[in-house]
Amino acid sequence: METASRRERLRAQTREEAKAAALRQIAEAGPQSLSLNAIGRELGMSGPALYRYFAGRDELLTELISDGYNDLADAIEATGKAAEDADPADRIRALARAFREWAVAQPHRYLLLFGTPVPGYAAPAHTIQAATRTLQAFLEPIAALGPDSRAAALEEQLAAGLADRSPDHAWSGPVLRVGVTGWTRMQGVVSLEVEGHFAPMGFDPGLLYEAEIESLIADAQGSEAG
Amino acid sequence: METASRRERLRAQTREEAKAAALRQIAEAGPQSLSLNAIGRELGMSGPALYRYFAGRDELLTELISDGYNDLADAIEATGKAAEDADPADRIRALARAFREWAVAQPHRYLLLFGTPVPGYAAPAHTIQAATRTLQAFLEPIAALGPDSRAAALEEQLAAGLADRSPDHAWSGPVLRVGVTGWTRMQGVVSLEVEGHFAPMGFDPGLLYEAEIESLIADAQGSEAG
Repeated sequence: METASRRERLRAQTREEAKAAALRQIAEAGPQSLSLNAIGRELGMSGPALYRYFAGRDELLTELISDGYNDLADAIEATGKAAEDADPADRIRALARAFREWAVAQPHRYLLLFGTPVPGYAAPAHTIQAATRTLQAFLEPIAALGPDSRAAALEEQLAAGLADRSPDHAWSGPVLRVGVTGWTRMQGVVSLEVEGHFAPMGFDPGLLYEAEIESLIADAQGSEAG
Repeated sequence: METASRRERLRAQTREEAKAAALRQIAEAGPQSLSLNAIGRELGMSGPALYRYFAGRDELLTELISDGYNDLADAIEATGKAAEDADPADRIRALARAFREWAVAQPHRYLLLFGTPVPGYAAPAHTIQAATRTLQAFLEPIAALGPDSRAAALEEQLAAGLADRSPDHAWSGPVLRVGVTGWTRMQGVVSLEVEGHFAPMGFDPGLLYEAEIESLIADAQGSEAG
């Protein structure tokens, strides 16, 4: 019994070490370059030995993507918890800033989730569960601001899509529209920022991001952005 | 003289064939996988022979990126020309739709420009010239709507940055802010769309995109979105 538990512990430790080595490889050379043999060498194991820990590159990628979504969701939820006494607009500000901070601090992990998909690899559906945690955290303060309906067809489709996937949740169409719009606006700024597109333009992307947070709050309040 | 010109023509033709083969490779396996040897094989040439046409993978990537920005700008400018008698809001709608159509029709080229940067490769500054043509096309109808000032520090930085890079252009800070915001909002939707993030959510990304175009127009008009 103890032996089995020790074996399990060592196995978990090796998997963590392999994932850390994989993230270093991705930071240096991109997710496409990921190689179990190279990771094995770094860990002083043969490639085939590492296959006893991961069925292959795809399983390793799936773990890293799943970890990424969970780590992002943990950071967002912790921020939400720390700001739970603030008013809804300030909660949205805090959550949105946490999203950008997470991305800018580790662009390779952000791009693993939200950059070019790795050719020949499809993330399994369960990785999305953690992605929805991040969206959920934003929907609560958005709902508290009570956005009104603006784009009926879009809002109906979003609400129907959510009802199919998560029958337990019942966010209104307008709340989902503001939430998804906030997501695309945050991504629009952060993706171009971490990919380096703003660098030659000589402005602080943080100012653009803050303006987008305010537009999101104004949209949720049903009042004019400004 | 004629021989030299024929040689030049054949050289240009070989380069075009190599670029077409490279784009097929990128569509299948991503830009990181680009290999002059593989392209040479497809063209029935040795890899070293192909090096007489391109100094290396980086030069080929630079050509493809430069072609991509120019092709996008051509599409946007042609749309602007076709809509030149429409009012500014309809011109913005037409330009924004052309942007998404270009991206959705050829995700691999869109992601070559706006996806994860290829590790170890830095696009030279001249590729950006064509990128600014696309932004310029949007700034003209935005300026016609006369946006007012909303984010002074951001607008000052954008105007100062443009004055440094393109002393010939004199768009106001508010016009640049709306233009760059429009860019990040379009990218936010289109990137997540072509990367497949919306697929499990069961809604038409076109509706979200149209709503963002209207928010951009409302922002440029200084009136409420909706």
